[in-house]
Amino acid sequence: VSMAKSMSLLWGAGSPPCWRVMITLEEKKLQGYRHKLLSFEKGEHKSQEVLEINPRGQLPAFKHGDNILNESVAACLYLENQFKSQGVKLIPDNPAEQALMYQRMMEGLSLTDKLNSVIYRDLLVPEEERHESALKRNKEALVTELKLWEGYLHKVAAGSYLAGAFSLADVIVFPNTAYAFRFGLSAGRYPKLAKYYSLLKDRPSIKASRPPQWLASPQGYEILKDL
Amino acid sequence: VSMAKSMSLLWGAGSPPCWRVMITLEEKKLQGYRHKLLSFEKGEHKSQEVLEINPRGQLPAFKHGDNILNESVAACLYLENQFKSQGVKLIPDNPAEQALMYQRMMEGLSLTDKLNSVIYRDLLVPEEERHESALKRNKEALVTELKLWEGYLHKVAAGSYLAGAFSLADVIVFPNTAYAFRFGLSAGRYPKLAKYYSLLKDRPSIKASRPPQWLASPQGYEILKDL
Repeated sequence: VSMAKSMSLLWGAGSPPCWRVMITLEEKKLQGYRHKLLSFEKGEHKSQEVLEINPRGQLPAFKHGDNILNESVAACLYLENQFKSQGVKLIPDNPAEQALMYQRMMEGLSLTDKLNSVIYRDLLVPEEERHESALKRNKEALVTELKLWEGYLHKVAAGSYLAGAFSLADVIVFPNTAYAFRFGLSAGRYPKLAKYYSLLKDRPSIKASRPPQWLASPQGYEILKDL
Repeated sequence: VSMAKSMSLLWGAGSPPCWRVMITLEEKKLQGYRHKLLSFEKGEHKSQEVLEINPRGQLPAFKHGDNILNESVAACLYLENQFKSQGVKLIPDNPAEQALMYQRMMEGLSLTDKLNSVIYRDLLVPEEERHESALKRNKEALVTELKLWEGYLHKVAAGSYLAGAFSLADVIVFPNTAYAFRFGLSAGRYPKLAKYYSLLKDRPSIKASRPPQWLASPQGYEILKDL
């Protein structure tokens, strides 16, 4: 825990990449790090405070001493490697599980991109450049992506995580699945993803770092309900 | 080298993700793996042979025994971790270098995305959805990205790589810089990137895995020349 004192996290509520870093800090028993919640709505992710750590003006902006890690996967890999024997081991030693873990972890970024292209379409595409055909294509790509994950989860043993025991693959992918359901994804049409979400949502590391606005307004959105 | 016999790679010429895996295999002294060059032009990345390994229909499609790794960063992390003491060590132990290595490695994927959005615009966006305003914005985002890397390289010591010694950060980022210059990027306006390219282009692992069509047609393209 004394190591945690040399860590600081600038984060935004409702950001899967921030949530990943927070879950990892919990799993590695690094509670007690300094953190500050910034508002995307107020543009605080573009503030000088952030830009000094992350020139991209994005959150998370994370420091451990003088070491800076702003990419969520990079931060999670670093924390696991620096604190291997502390808390939960997040990279399996077994070669087959390790291969699956790295593969699913990196595929998780495709899920992020495809969710963002639909959920944040209006933020990403100026009004005069919007096409129904593009939105339709992005929704189809998201459905294909979600079905791929349904298939992956179909193959894992009952009660199992993405790559055997809980691992960085879950740290990276879980926040995306939580967002998908928050934004209206049908548990009926994606039963394996729904089961995976249920398996993980009350895990202590995840509960402790759940986006605060989800408590304030438990009702989600409907943008993904027809997928 | 006997380990390499249990490895197979389906790859496409002109794919930075494939090149990354090939560089890593060279650096880890895993020459002798089976490999097969497929044609994107002929749609061979969507063939049954690929889909059996990679349901996304993308290259690389890599197997080590029964372990499947299709995401380039995942494959590189796996190979380094499985063959730590063989060939060149690609993840530094020193915490500061390791942090920088993971951070630059993952930022490399932003460079890939931003290059692709400009170089492959016509493949990615159907004709009726193309907007000059979008292309202009994507070019500006690419310039911002390239200047970020100029800045990063400005700070490293002379003759140094992205994170101290040659590492996975270079494995991931170098193929992108090679493509940027192949597609016409100005060495005059991006002198640090040009120097970085020169430092690495004849490294044995990189030379051995250079896209074969670059030899056949050394002349590149001009699409990035005005950036």
